[in-house]
Amino acid sequence: MADKNQKIAIYPGSFDPVTNGHLDILERALKIFDRIILAVGDNPGKKPLFTVGERLGILRAVCKGMKNVEIDSFSGLMIEYAKQRNADAIIRGLRAVSDFDYEFQLALMNRNLDCDIETVFIMTAEKYVYLNSGIVKEISRYNGNVKGLVPKEVDSFLMKKFGR
Amino acid sequence: MADKNQKIAIYPGSFDPVTNGHLDILERALKIFDRIILAVGDNPGKKPLFTVGERLGILRAVCKGMKNVEIDSFSGLMIEYAKQRNADAIIRGLRAVSDFDYEFQLALMNRNLDCDIETVFIMTAEKYVYLNSGIVKEISRYNGNVKGLVPKEVDSFLMKKFGR
Amino acid sequence: MADKNQKIAIYPGSFDPVTNGHLDILERALKIFDRIILAVGDNPGKKPLFTVGERLGILRAVCKGMKNVEIDSFSGLMIEYAKQRNADAIIRGLRAVSDFDYEFQLALMNRNLDCDIETVFIMTAEKYVYLNSGIVKEISRYNGNVKGLVPKEVDSFLMKKFGR
Amino acid sequence: MADKNQKIAIYPGSFDPVTNGHLDILERALKIFDRIILAVGDNPGKKPLFTVGERLGILRAVCKGMKNVEIDSFSGLMIEYAKQRNADAIIRGLRAVSDFDYEFQLALMNRNLDCDIETVFIMTAEKYVYLNSGIVKEISRYNGNVKGLVPKEVDSFLMKKFGR
Amino acid sequence: MADKNQKIAIYPGSFDPVTNGHLDILERALKIFDRIILAVGDNPGKKPLFTVGERLGILRAVCKGMKNVEIDSFSGLMIEYAKQRNADAIIRGLRAVSDFDYEFQLALMNRNLDCDIETVFIMTAEKYVYLNSGIVKEISRYNGNVKGLVPKEVDSFLMKKFGR
Amino acid sequence: MADKNQKIAIYPGSFDPVTNGHLDILERALKIFDRIILAVGDNPGKKPLFTVGERLGILRAVCKGMKNVEIDSFSGLMIEYAKQRNADAIIRGLRAVSDFDYEFQLALMNRNLDCDIETVFIMTAEKYVYLNSGIVKEISRYNGNVKGLVPKEVDSFLMKKFGR
Repeated sequence: MADKNQKIAIYPGSFDPVTNGHLDILERALKIFDRIILAVGDNPGKKPLFTVGERLGILRAVCKGMKNVEIDSFSGLMIEYAKQRNADAIIRGLRAVSDFDYEFQLALMNRNLDCDIETVFIMTAEKYVYLNSGIVKEISRYNGNVKGLVPKEVDSFLMKKFGR
Repeated sequence: MADKNQKIAIYPGSFDPVTNGHLDILERALKIFDRIILAVGDNPGKKPLFTVGERLGILRAVCKGMKNVEIDSFSGLMIEYAKQRNADAIIRGLRAVSDFDYEFQLALMNRNLDCDIETVFIMTAEKYVYLNSGIVKEISRYNGNVKGLVPKEVDSFLMKKFGR
Repeated sequence: MADKNQKIAIYPGSFDPVTNGHLDILERALKIFDRIILAVGDNPGKKPLFTVGERLGILRAVCKGMKNVEIDSFSGLMIEYAKQRNADAIIRGLRAVSDFDYEFQLALMNRNLDCDIETVFIMTAEKYVYLNSGIVKEISRYNGNVKGLVPKEVDSFLMKKFGR
Repeated sequence: MADKNQKIAIYPGSFDPVTNGHLDILERALKIFDRIILAVGDNPGKKPLFTVGERLGILRAVCKGMKNVEIDSFSGLMIEYAKQRNADAIIRGLRAVSDFDYEFQLALMNRNLDCDIETVFIMTAEKYVYLNSGIVKEISRYNGNVKGLVPKEVDSFLMKKFGR
Repeated sequence: MADKNQKIAIYPGSFDPVTNGHLDILERALKIFDRIILAVGDNPGKKPLFTVGERLGILRAVCKGMKNVEIDSFSGLMIEYAKQRNADAIIRGLRAVSDFDYEFQLALMNRNLDCDIETVFIMTAEKYVYLNSGIVKEISRYNGNVKGLVPKEVDSFLMKKFGR
Repeated sequence: MADKNQKIAIYPGSFDPVTNGHLDILERALKIFDRIILAVGDNPGKKPLFTVGERLGILRAVCKGMKNVEIDSFSGLMIEYAKQRNADAIIRGLRAVSDFDYEFQLALMNRNLDCDIETVFIMTAEKYVYLNSGIVKEISRYNGNVKGLVPKEVDSFLMKKFGR
């Protein structure tokens, strides 16, 4: 049975694939929220490397044993999903100024659609400021070393995907 | 017959579709210029939701009865169109820092191509800083509420387009 | 007796004086944290309009009756104060990109000094993006109208300070 | 007698001293507005190199013979001055992103204080993007060459001020 | 035989086509490095106007007679190419803030992959701050004048490509 | 006797005091230039914590034994100093977007004053992106721990200065 005072946050993203930067934000958010739902967005407009099913599988492997973390996916408007899950907040990681405007527009749009769910921004560790899923995929595609950028499990998934 | 002292400005854009943010800029510009030409750009590189014809129709419905406003479309270089129309200025709305660099590059390029037509930047109202046509389309596609973001007429066009 | 599961956040600032923008952030933060400590920084390097004592008095008048809010002051390093108060997080309001770099440097420095207390960023409402204490003081100094920018109580304090 | 259809704009600033960048903005604005009032702000909080009287003198020397340009000064809130002068718009030059946030806050504050007077942003020429009055004073103080950065008249005023 | 003390830099890019802005950076870099390798990236994800072979041909025509400049192409990770060529540094041109975050992420990723090759940023001349290959192609496609934006040789290649 | 082919760079700054971030940039620059002159600016407008003499002493202690590094000071315009020293380039460290505009204005002004000396930007390591001399002084003033932020020698100088 859910505790009414529990604070629940959605951490939405493509997670294509999840990186150490995402996990860093997750750990920081777990200090503040009682439960975090990692929610994989099923965005038909994007061409992901991994299917939603594969991304859920990767996240489940990586987050195995983590308490207070749930893995889920959604399609449609994220804020609608957050409402259905009774979330108190949406978590977004910030790395650099280029993230800023887009994140602000998103947060303001979501506030416009539902003013009760707050967007909370958390900074990534310095060592991950340059890291995003696209860079990981580019390095891995050309057989570069992604150690330190993604969890071990992700490296295996990438190697399989790129046929090595 | 045109008054030689009249100040004419082009307000170019995709307007796919026009939002309340665009109309806010238009109203502000009308305090400064004697005549504004809302000019729909026919950019073959983009995949718009509405055809140029549909966008012209939407704008005509929305701006019906507005004095000193003309609706038109153009293809090719915008600055060439502005020259043909004897415009004194080009109007661009600014919302956020992310708009800034692109707008500056565009303005400087246009100045390079014709140094007599000045680009004038006007700030949108705070309540529209997060608003753009893409966000409107995304919300409407998933059946979200776009009230307050676009004029009523646009809502109807969107619902028809998304088959509701 | 304090509940061990309670989440406590520090909301530090100069609050010289508190504005409606600060109160907007406070209300949003109260949805996430169980208790918020509004902490007035006593920074000897700055020349405030109001003394720390006056600023505490203003905040107490403005926040009267607010549950889960405590008013306090600190001197020295803010992160040391946060540690003493057993805070889980530090709250910072974000308005615009110009806030961003300074806030990031501050958050990273604090993380370096104590990696257990996370900095959490919350966006102000659109209507307050331009608002800061300096603008309020400038308007009030020249007898302009600060209604809508600060709580009524602050207006009275400002008028007294500027000898009206 | 003033023509009711005339469009009047205030171009406010410290002009301590006026640079070629300011004059570039002025010329561009004259293509759009019928009359421009160059308004020297008397800001008691700043320590200018030139007094308001000197700055007015420099501007009068530099703008001698320019049609549709008036030189004036103001103290207090700029927007109040703009109202008294029946201005339709306020002109601000933009050079770089660092100008942006401050200018936006100012424009939004002024809109809050008087929603009828619009702020209009105009881009400086590329060759003046790095130019501001502070840089001119620093170069001149150390006997560097400010040719091309300020009008000839300003160079003389600077040399006199620095005792050469 | 290569001089061990020679400083070699890679200047990588799409060069689709090379502009006067690229050549401006190249000339500035030649004052610092003993040898520059202009390296055309063969990125299968992009749809260039000119093939890698055509871009190499254009660069060879444009840089004919330039001492200490080599024209080459690469595929895969640029940093791997830089290692094979024993480069001391990678050169990147900076024009505007919008370049900044992407360039920083790239530089940090490359540092992560090889910490011995430093990325060095050089500013373009003011007159080229708005210039990029995409703008050149857009102007040329619509029969606009690209004089002053690209070397004469590039203009001919563009006209041929666009069938004039 | 100086080698004519030697590449010399000035690394100017306040160095009040030098941090590990400055030393990180210095080490990176030494891979590219044959000789680096660390040049302490004597800026009468600023109120430094350490005198120019003290800052030179700190730098000499910290850089003891470093090859190809010279410690010096200058007053007046930095670019004039760079000319006198026959420098090929000026080195500036970049940490964040907030540095960017100021640095660009400075670089463009210096280019205007002497177009032969190029400004070269080098990125600091991620772990130093938040670090500047001001933060170090603030932490040390309140008896916080600056280990990892400055070399050991600087810590001693700071403790003496703050009377511990």
